[in-house]
Amino acid sequence: MSAEKAAGVTVALDVMGAERGSEAVAEGVRAAVADGISVRAFGLAEALEPLLAIDGVETVQAADWIGNDVEPAATVRAKPEASIVLAAADVAAGRSQAIVSAGSTGATMAAATFALKRLQGVRRPALAIQLPVPGGEGAATVLLDGGANTEVRALDLVQFGFLGSAFCQAVLGVEAPRVGLLSVGEEDKKGTPTVIEAHAALASAEGIDFIGNVEGRDLLARQADVIVTDGFTGNVALKTIEGTARAVADAVRQAARSGPVSALGGLLLRPALGGLREQLNPDNTGGAILLGLRGVAIVGHGSSGPDGIANAIRLGEHTVRERAVERTAELLERAGATRGSLRDN
Amino acid sequence: MSAEKAAGVTVALDVMGAERGSEAVAEGVRAAVADGISVRAFGLAEALEPLLAIDGVETVQAADWIGNDVEPAATVRAKPEASIVLAAADVAAGRSQAIVSAGSTGATMAAATFALKRLQGVRRPALAIQLPVPGGEGAATVLLDGGANTEVRALDLVQFGFLGSAFCQAVLGVEAPRVGLLSVGEEDKKGTPTVIEAHAALASAEGIDFIGNVEGRDLLARQADVIVTDGFTGNVALKTIEGTARAVADAVRQAARSGPVSALGGLLLRPALGGLREQLNPDNTGGAILLGLRGVAIVGHGSSGPDGIANAIRLGEHTVRERAVERTAELLERAGATRGSLRDN
Repeated sequence: MSAEKAAGVTVALDVMGAERGSEAVAEGVRAAVADGISVRAFGLAEALEPLLAIDGVETVQAADWIGNDVEPAATVRAKPEASIVLAAADVAAGRSQAIVSAGSTGATMAAATFALKRLQGVRRPALAIQLPVPGGEGAATVLLDGGANTEVRALDLVQFGFLGSAFCQAVLGVEAPRVGLLSVGEEDKKGTPTVIEAHAALASAEGIDFIGNVEGRDLLARQADVIVTDGFTGNVALKTIEGTARAVADAVRQAARSGPVSALGGLLLRPALGGLREQLNPDNTGGAILLGLRGVAIVGHGSSGPDGIANAIRLGEHTVRERAVERTAELLERAGATRGSLRDN
Repeated sequence: MSAEKAAGVTVALDVMGAERGSEAVAEGVRAAVADGISVRAFGLAEALEPLLAIDGVETVQAADWIGNDVEPAATVRAKPEASIVLAAADVAAGRSQAIVSAGSTGATMAAATFALKRLQGVRRPALAIQLPVPGGEGAATVLLDGGANTEVRALDLVQFGFLGSAFCQAVLGVEAPRVGLLSVGEEDKKGTPTVIEAHAALASAEGIDFIGNVEGRDLLARQADVIVTDGFTGNVALKTIEGTARAVADAVRQAARSGPVSALGGLLLRPALGGLREQLNPDNTGGAILLGLRGVAIVGHGSSGPDGIANAIRLGEHTVRERAVERTAELLERAGATRGSLRDN
């Protein structure tokens, strides 16, 4: 396995903006490199410092970087020397094969979209995120869009369905992914006009297993392999899952402190609950992947620790190795989803 | 307390469509009536049967009722003899003071809006829902719109802020409610164009304590007393909370079955966790309240058991007794939120 990986993939990593700092990044990089993945790391000199001694890592110094508090597209255009822009250009030039960032989602999306370009016919790239699987085994449900496009057309939702389906097949190994459309009821006339239009188009689309509308309560119920929605609703839903899981976990902890008997119960249950904490840990999925581009771009979870960084790099490598972009392009082509199967109105 | 309640309020209850059946409704009604609330119950003869013997309950037989699988507004107009239409007319005629339904949300909203009319200047009534408070004491955060309007304008979101604020003051006793706007980031330029416009209007509005944008992860964090959003996002968020809480609770239960030590831990922790289950139980808030009308309308949780029915009736009574509608009208009037403080574009 390692030999096969070593044969190939180099990841362009933007080290800037990681909330847990450059030591955490270095630790994650060390773990990924140990798997045989090559890394080209981009950042300011001091952020690259902890990476200098790692075998399998090349560092490329950047004069600038882009944080969260700016308009991403304009800033990416205005700062050609920013680390994320250099990382994206590195992939575009073929020196590396996947952009991975633990920094600004917006800047990563803008830099990746400018440098890698969209797949033929894709109007809007979308952020795909693997939802947590509390208490379970098996592949996670993929939600998209997780926040790239706050407003979408029906055509975009249909394309998200195909993009997510192709990703599930290529990267997660799901043979015939079930695709659901997030709405406020199961009936096909429930939702906004855009959602209702997308429902009709998905229902008549070929090359995709559309199971109809799903609701918020189905997100973690594994009724679908792919769930599509606009980036506003998707982002709210993802953060609602995160907040609710945290609130419930806190309440369980609090219950375990409510008296000596409960405390003993909590103590005995703790090892088993450790597994649950792992299942809910966003670090384990390696972050979001930007689908619809002619290359691979991964946005790590902003608060990633070393595991999160390592898993984001591994996800980038895996996505390249599984030829996910090429397979997505083929699926879109075959399905004709990008050419006239839905009026782009 | 009971004497004060007995002085007054009669609730018009639509007994049809309750998923747990008429015996559960009857048990809930019995509990509410024991608190001194009068009930006029509307439904088909057989559904009223279990209520006939209850003191303090009048039954009114309806020839028809409206379920979930129809277009609500058209059906309400077409079926004047439906139980929810009769209940709404009963309140409009002054024979009772609050509509309470455990059936179709859409039909209840349509019947209530037609019969009770909107408050001066309110463009769209909204469904307000008290969010669960896992592990905590104190007033819940109120989310609106929970699903009445899948699409809104910025003006609607601003009005929702005032409606929610007035409800919090009048019914929940929060003196200066903090109002947040649900979006995908804290910055005032994050979100859809509608959300960005609403943010600006709320920030400059008087008579409301606007704390800015909140995110999905803040919904259960009690950062705000009121959180406003469109009915599509609100409905997805509510059901996502419900689904996530259930998935995490199931995973905790599963962890407690993973071996003999964990099983003992789960057993010892069970009494303390029972409290958490109660806190997450939607029955405890009594359901959603339709704000923006000249009268009180409550939509119970569809799957309500007896406690849910009783609490929905109590919420209706309490809302009437606290003069919530009158106080909301006064607040809107004072704030001028309904007249030109925002262009209705």
